Amino acid sequence: MHFASDNTAGVAPAILAALSAANAGHMPSYGADPLSAAVVARLRAIFEAPEAAVYLVPTGTAANALSCAVLTQPWGAIFCHRNAHIEEDECGAPEFYTGGSKLVLVEGADAKMDPEALRRIIAHTGRGGIHNVQRGMVSLTNATEAGAVYTPAEVAAICAIARDFKLPVHMDGARFANALVSLGCTPAEMTWKAGVEVLSFGGTKNGCMGVEAVILFNPARAHEFETRRKRGGHLFSKHRFLAAQMAAYLEGDLWLDLARHANAMAARLSAGIRTVPGAHLLHPTDANEVFAAFPRGAHRRLQAAGAAYYLWPFDQSLEGDAAESLSARMVTSWATTEAEVDTFLAHLK
Amino acid sequence: MHFASDNTAGVAPAILAALSAANAGHMPSYGADPLSAAVVARLRAIFEAPEAAVYLVPTGTAANALSCAVLTQPWGAIFCHRNAHIEEDECGAPEFYTGGSKLVLVEGADAKMDPEALRRIIAHTGRGGIHNVQRGMVSLTNATEAGAVYTPAEVAAICAIARDFKLPVHMDGARFANALVSLGCTPAEMTWKAGVEVLSFGGTKNGCMGVEAVILFNPARAHEFETRRKRGGHLFSKHRFLAAQMAAYLEGDLWLDLARHANAMAARLSAGIRTVPGAHLLHPTDANEVFAAFPRGAHRRLQAAGAAYYLWPFDQSLEGDAAESLSARMVTSWATTEAEVDTFLAHLK
Amino acid sequence: MHFASDNTAGVAPAILAALSAANAGHMPSYGADPLSAAVVARLRAIFEAPEAAVYLVPTGTAANALSCAVLTQPWGAIFCHRNAHIEEDECGAPEFYTGGSKLVLVEGADAKMDPEALRRIIAHTGRGGIHNVQRGMVSLTNATEAGAVYTPAEVAAICAIARDFKLPVHMDGARFANALVSLGCTPAEMTWKAGVEVLSFGGTKNGCMGVEAVILFNPARAHEFETRRKRGGHLFSKHRFLAAQMAAYLEGDLWLDLARHANAMAARLSAGIRTVPGAHLLHPTDANEVFAAFPRGAHRRLQAAGAAYYLWPFDQSLEGDAAESLSARMVTSWATTEAEVDTFLAHLK
Amino acid sequence: MHFASDNTAGVAPAILAALSAANAGHMPSYGADPLSAAVVARLRAIFEAPEAAVYLVPTGTAANALSCAVLTQPWGAIFCHRNAHIEEDECGAPEFYTGGSKLVLVEGADAKMDPEALRRIIAHTGRGGIHNVQRGMVSLTNATEAGAVYTPAEVAAICAIARDFKLPVHMDGARFANALVSLGCTPAEMTWKAGVEVLSFGGTKNGCMGVEAVILFNPARAHEFETRRKRGGHLFSKHRFLAAQMAAYLEGDLWLDLARHANAMAARLSAGIRTVPGAHLLHPTDANEVFAAFPRGAHRRLQAAGAAYYLWPFDQSLEGDAAESLSARMVTSWATTEAEVDTFLAHLK
Repeated sequence: MHFASDNTAGVAPAILAALSAANAGHMPSYGADPLSAAVVARLRAIFEAPEAAVYLVPTGTAANALSCAVLTQPWGAIFCHRNAHIEEDECGAPEFYTGGSKLVLVEGADAKMDPEALRRIIAHTGRGGIHNVQRGMVSLTNATEAGAVYTPAEVAAICAIARDFKLPVHMDGARFANALVSLGCTPAEMTWKAGVEVLSFGGTKNGCMGVEAVILFNPARAHEFETRRKRGGHLFSKHRFLAAQMAAYLEGDLWLDLARHANAMAARLSAGIRTVPGAHLLHPTDANEVFAAFPRGAHRRLQAAGAAYYLWPFDQSLEGDAAESLSARMVTSWATTEAEVDTFLAHLK
Repeated sequence: MHFASDNTAGVAPAILAALSAANAGHMPSYGADPLSAAVVARLRAIFEAPEAAVYLVPTGTAANALSCAVLTQPWGAIFCHRNAHIEEDECGAPEFYTGGSKLVLVEGADAKMDPEALRRIIAHTGRGGIHNVQRGMVSLTNATEAGAVYTPAEVAAICAIARDFKLPVHMDGARFANALVSLGCTPAEMTWKAGVEVLSFGGTKNGCMGVEAVILFNPARAHEFETRRKRGGHLFSKHRFLAAQMAAYLEGDLWLDLARHANAMAARLSAGIRTVPGAHLLHPTDANEVFAAFPRGAHRRLQAAGAAYYLWPFDQSLEGDAAESLSARMVTSWATTEAEVDTFLAHLK
Repeated sequence: MHFASDNTAGVAPAILAALSAANAGHMPSYGADPLSAAVVARLRAIFEAPEAAVYLVPTGTAANALSCAVLTQPWGAIFCHRNAHIEEDECGAPEFYTGGSKLVLVEGADAKMDPEALRRIIAHTGRGGIHNVQRGMVSLTNATEAGAVYTPAEVAAICAIARDFKLPVHMDGARFANALVSLGCTPAEMTWKAGVEVLSFGGTKNGCMGVEAVILFNPARAHEFETRRKRGGHLFSKHRFLAAQMAAYLEGDLWLDLARHANAMAARLSAGIRTVPGAHLLHPTDANEVFAAFPRGAHRRLQAAGAAYYLWPFDQSLEGDAAESLSARMVTSWATTEAEVDTFLAHLK
Repeated sequence: MHFASDNTAGVAPAILAALSAANAGHMPSYGADPLSAAVVARLRAIFEAPEAAVYLVPTGTAANALSCAVLTQPWGAIFCHRNAHIEEDECGAPEFYTGGSKLVLVEGADAKMDPEALRRIIAHTGRGGIHNVQRGMVSLTNATEAGAVYTPAEVAAICAIARDFKLPVHMDGARFANALVSLGCTPAEMTWKAGVEVLSFGGTKNGCMGVEAVILFNPARAHEFETRRKRGGHLFSKHRFLAAQMAAYLEGDLWLDLARHANAMAARLSAGIRTVPGAHLLHPTDANEVFAAFPRGAHRRLQAAGAAYYLWPFDQSLEGDAAESLSARMVTSWATTEAEVDTFLAHLK
């Protein structure tokens, strides 16, 4: 019962096989190989963005921090949700890569920024002229850290506010595929058509070994991105192996199939939880994360049975009143099985 | 005839196989898996350094820049050879990770720092007190960028000078294995026994896909290193796949076998060149790089035949007097064949 | 009626005179002159801190940002009040000088951090290990941005929480003198005896031209501070003129007299406002800032009469219902006269 | 006999008096006062640059480092002479403010960059594409660190090379006035007409207390400069006192008079030295610095008589053979007297 994170799963077989296939012979290094070029072309096609600049990096933190660095100056505020990954889980990587930007935190249910809260805080920031940090950029996460999904209209609403202040928008798409299959729209509709300028397009959590694409729909910052990537130590010499992962991930819509499976497993888990007396969901299950509260006694049973997941927030204890409710996060992945879900539910009841 | 760089070769078969083996089931992420622990133990044993802190990162630039960042303050000078990789080939990554250190360049034959030149320049730097950048650290590369190797005694001589000024020493070992098998000493003798505090231990150029270990023989800076690695976006979530590469690389001394092969191919090439009238070596062939000068006409023949290598420095032209000598760099790898070498030599003659 | 800020006042006459006195002849530069040494000795005596390291800088932003930079690593959180000057009024200088720290904001009335809110947020920060920014330092402001004053016991309570997490404490004392004369305690009691490690000791707002002292009660970071000051461009060559200001400021307790006057003028203004129907105070008037709300009609009268002060927050408008209450900040200084206060009150009534 | 530096002198009387004059009454802070506006207008007129953006900062290091920060990205090389102040005397401030640029050092006599050496090193830098630091900007110093002066034609030659590579040019004019009166050209001819984009216009060394102007002839980077100045802690609240110094400095061409005097004193010293057997000049005396070598015995006599100046380089010793020649730097200022010069020469003979 592996629900700790989608990054505890391994690599999807087709992606692993692609590494072997890419190993034949010598290849130019640093991305000058044909496979790397093919990945760029494929992502441009998928996103209907023939001019987009596309770069591969090994981690989501690198993708996000580099994206922020090309979108804001060091003195620019990055407006994001209080629970955004860039705020809570990257040890200050955005501050490091931007040269000291300030993340200004926005409230909102289900880890989605409330548009009016966003507008107010942007208006407030920089009102004091040179004495304040300036307005820099907006970053939103889709699917969110609470497992919810912004619709294209919701993304567009955020982008419209940003545009009112002439700010660019970044989307952290570490779980982009999960959001996409949930929404049933096109990749373009989720991003540049709604006003997103730079996308962190996740691969690792959805079955790759370690690769994310950064897509700059406006390629004006392409050279800067390349330079920052190199300077950050994220330009792979044997770049073909990043490309091979991404190529296989996209081949035949594997990425969508993997995400559909993960989402289906989350939906199954979520539906099961809803039927358990004393348990309830904390956020909508739009993608592959389930947030739920249920009694401490059930947590003890599950953990005794070997279920892996996090109490969320961390600082809750299994010690205490068995009837009291504790909240938890369960993440499904391409590798989750129906049996795992059903066993979990059996222990929960 | 692939002599452009050791990073145009693919992955050694045993290392590729290890990725598949590591893929079974779920594993804790971020390095908390058993394979990652085993790699730490193995490297400690190889280096006879049971207290050393060991971290994996995906690129050599990350290894070097993070190493510098834990060894010097932003205002500390990094003393290194004028041709060091950190000076010439990392787009300022050390400056970025250290927060603005200055690389102070030292001369010396075969890309080895001349000890007296090093001593003079350290003494000179910081003589003006608070007005100058301060003395920070020393970084040397073994094998060097000119394919030469520092002996343990030579490393010790550099370290002794550093110690006179209370400076720590970093070794860039992107081609550590090539140097080691050339010297026939122990890993410990090449490093901490000679006074090195932090080592970038290369894997990628010698048959891995993309992994380097950073070994801190003095573990006092371990937590800082971990934090900087995370903040730099270099902590892999599916860390087992970095570990799997490194484990296979070290298993049964594969790393030494791969390096011995690469060095033998370079020696074969070097020996062949020495016999060609009008050709001569520019540096000793201590490891897996051959630097040689030979007539422009021969270069034209070789490149027409498909030989891949760099004119070194880059800014020479194949256009012009056929008899004039141009200098070049040829790099061998674990994947180089005797046939490649012999074909190259046949075209050269 | 000059109540916009204490920095719109000029320089106290004795301090201006000291600049002329210091101008005689040649002096060693960069702080090696006798006057600079005398200032260090005097501040050590005033603070009963014979070992303290003392440095002069020209601005409060420099004092604060440099203080933060020596107290936390780039990945350390700086815990401060949401309205702290370092958060709201320095355009990200702390982020710049620290290399990208994150300011983590604490709530509390009158711009004083609530101790339990501070404890909770420190406990929360860094709970996720390497993924979060780490706990770095605490910074409190005395007098606060709301014109209130922390008592020594309140400072000690903040410091005790910091100590529980092994965090150092910085005090922004841009209005230190105003707080001190309000409290009637000793400088030592307000700072190191309560647990403060580094103090920004303000001069500019209280009658100097442009000088602040940074006092490191624990001198271990002295050399680092000196280096950062130089690197930040804040080491004056003609340093005697910073020293002359500070020496005159401290001479014969001028600094206390100036602060007592400013506080008395604020008290007079505050007392007057309390007697005006429809007006009320928003914060206690502990030092030299008065925060009050009164009808828009009164604001119009005052501003028509030439009164200078800020609506606080800025984004309120003089247009609209005359009876509606708007909040404002009035700051007094060493140069404020009773007549100014009384004229203000006359217009207010 | 005060020849240690021009910054050991005090403040010219008219400038000191201007501080008192500026002290009357209240003034808007942060540069919004009329005196600050007048200084901007005056410098624009002097430089025939009605569009130029002009900012005041307290130190030369701040002026230079902020100038570099707006002219190059963190990954851009700053091409400057090996003896430039930004390389040798600012403790890495340019690296700090730029976010980690690399200073690439150019040779040339009298601390003037040799144009062909500059062209070669620019061409060389960045030849390896993304692997190298990129070409960023050029910085030259006038008068140079060796007391020589670039003519407008020489400045134009440097700028033409920069323009060939599309690089902006900064001039460190800490001793701009000394160069200007030496050349007899206009301020515009020395700067923007020759191709300079940003100038650090020195005041402190030539009789001010602590003020430099940064002049951006192309105002496109004005807002960025302002933000960086604030973020660096260099925006004075009582800004009128920076403005008052600069206004008085420029009033009635005082700045030129002060520089003419300093240069005349250097010329007198230089001429005297030329007549002393065993003494010789090391650089031309174009401005207010004299570099000369003379016997150790003479150094001992001078220093015993209280002459203040530096052996240059520092690491020479007064101990040893009396006949052996040691090199030295003597700097004159607005405050140097003919008597001081003549006494020095008397001891030298």
